[in-house]
Amino acid sequence: MRIARVGAPGSERPVVVSADGTLLDLCGLTPDIDGAFLGRLATVETAALQRLPGAEELRFGAPFTRPGKVVGIGLNYRDHAAEARVPLPTEPVVFLKAPTSVSGPTDDIRTLPQSVTTDYEVELGVVLGATLRDERDPGRAMAAVAGYVLAHDVSDRALQLERGGTWTKGKSADTFCPVGPWLVTPDELGDPADVRLRLAVNGATRQDGSTGDMLFTIAELLCYVSGLMTLEPGDLIVTGTPAGVAMGQPEPRPYLRHGDVVELDGGVLGRHRNLVVDPARSAAPAAAS
Amino acid sequence: MRIARVGAPGSERPVVVSADGTLLDLCGLTPDIDGAFLGRLATVETAALQRLPGAEELRFGAPFTRPGKVVGIGLNYRDHAAEARVPLPTEPVVFLKAPTSVSGPTDDIRTLPQSVTTDYEVELGVVLGATLRDERDPGRAMAAVAGYVLAHDVSDRALQLERGGTWTKGKSADTFCPVGPWLVTPDELGDPADVRLRLAVNGATRQDGSTGDMLFTIAELLCYVSGLMTLEPGDLIVTGTPAGVAMGQPEPRPYLRHGDVVELDGGVLGRHRNLVVDPARSAAPAAAS
Repeated sequence: MRIARVGAPGSERPVVVSADGTLLDLCGLTPDIDGAFLGRLATVETAALQRLPGAEELRFGAPFTRPGKVVGIGLNYRDHAAEARVPLPTEPVVFLKAPTSVSGPTDDIRTLPQSVTTDYEVELGVVLGATLRDERDPGRAMAAVAGYVLAHDVSDRALQLERGGTWTKGKSADTFCPVGPWLVTPDELGDPADVRLRLAVNGATRQDGSTGDMLFTIAELLCYVSGLMTLEPGDLIVTGTPAGVAMGQPEPRPYLRHGDVVELDGGVLGRHRNLVVDPARSAAPAAAS
Repeated sequence: MRIARVGAPGSERPVVVSADGTLLDLCGLTPDIDGAFLGRLATVETAALQRLPGAEELRFGAPFTRPGKVVGIGLNYRDHAAEARVPLPTEPVVFLKAPTSVSGPTDDIRTLPQSVTTDYEVELGVVLGATLRDERDPGRAMAAVAGYVLAHDVSDRALQLERGGTWTKGKSADTFCPVGPWLVTPDELGDPADVRLRLAVNGATRQDGSTGDMLFTIAELLCYVSGLMTLEPGDLIVTGTPAGVAMGQPEPRPYLRHGDVVELDGGVLGRHRNLVVDPARSAAPAAAS
């Protein structure tokens, strides 16, 4: 099953995306796609749902309400650690992105003011449907997954790495975590270690990797992070990016510039298409994603 | 005005703490102390509130519902930066703590398993009552403050600094952010740059500082952080700690051990008293703070 939220920022409606792309109204079953609903996704019957008229014209938002936390994993692909010129981590690198950074798959990406080091990172996002606390069993950890999303961990490298930011500074700006267009349940995704992730800037491919190249698997990450902090329904984990980011390339590095168009492709997870804009020349986004 | 939440974890009730310590029932005005209520604190009339019977026997929880985000500031006192043996930051060091780390002022602090580097940090916490986005005006930034709390930024140093954690790993465990017992409104606190902060372990003073020694003022921090990410009503900023942490002392460093009692004193902000416990030998805390 694929679920999504469509509509203007702050007034999205929950829908099921059927196999042929028709959007089915979920409002009769839930007011929104929050942690509580994600926890009972497996019990949802879609057979009687009606088509939402006119929904095909609507914007896709993030496919869930704002997460309680967004956990990021760094350097989780061998080739990306190499291009970042750092040793392979012996245990997962963990950071947090501000939940206010979450946005929709076609929303503008607003750089930080005067930024010249805004970078892109296509990632597999994992959304929790149950609580995990200090879980050691990989099977039970995977059973807590509500679904998967295509995610973009936008990063300002100067703020992340050079200005005392402990990564948070460069990872947390509003619009720095586009997700969607839909959440795909585990049964529909298949093997989360066999997802092709691609990213292009202005039509030129920059990243083309597979989640099969992750250093730490989804189950390992869930167990590890749940030993550091309790994970709850609705929490999002973005699981690292394959090689090809601007930071890893020779000077002059091809960081994102205002006017660039970034496109992500996650196969069954769907696609993003975002315009990179100057915050000084664009309206602030609405509060909700 | 001082506001608080009393009751068992997960079923706290909102109260006003009157000058003589009587707890007045706020349930008629709000179901809980969340961002929406914090945004209208200034309009709250307490004259007609009734005493909450039996409340004096109840536990104090965190004085607000779980924040949307908990922003931490590192190395914001000259003497603490010196003891940490790092240069004075030229701009604020910013990190995030998981919102699930928030707990009450007398709740147990559960170390991470096998930790031998759990450290204490007494801090002034700032709670937002309005949205701040890329704010440049110090006066408008301060007008967005709903109130102040005594906060404890518990930190596992090995995880924070040595194991690829980008600070998040060592700062985000459940119970690693005790706050309370009450939130003090700005008019009642007086000058936030003149708050004495003390912390003792097993009766011996370890930290005794003043917020007057902060490198970056509350207004400067609010403006700076709001340029990195949107701050919203209910968000908490913990603003750094004065000297005296275990990490700053000669070997063998006096890190917290199971059975230790940590006491914090913030004057009008109130006091904490927490027992440090082994997670392997204690029940997990309830989900809510």
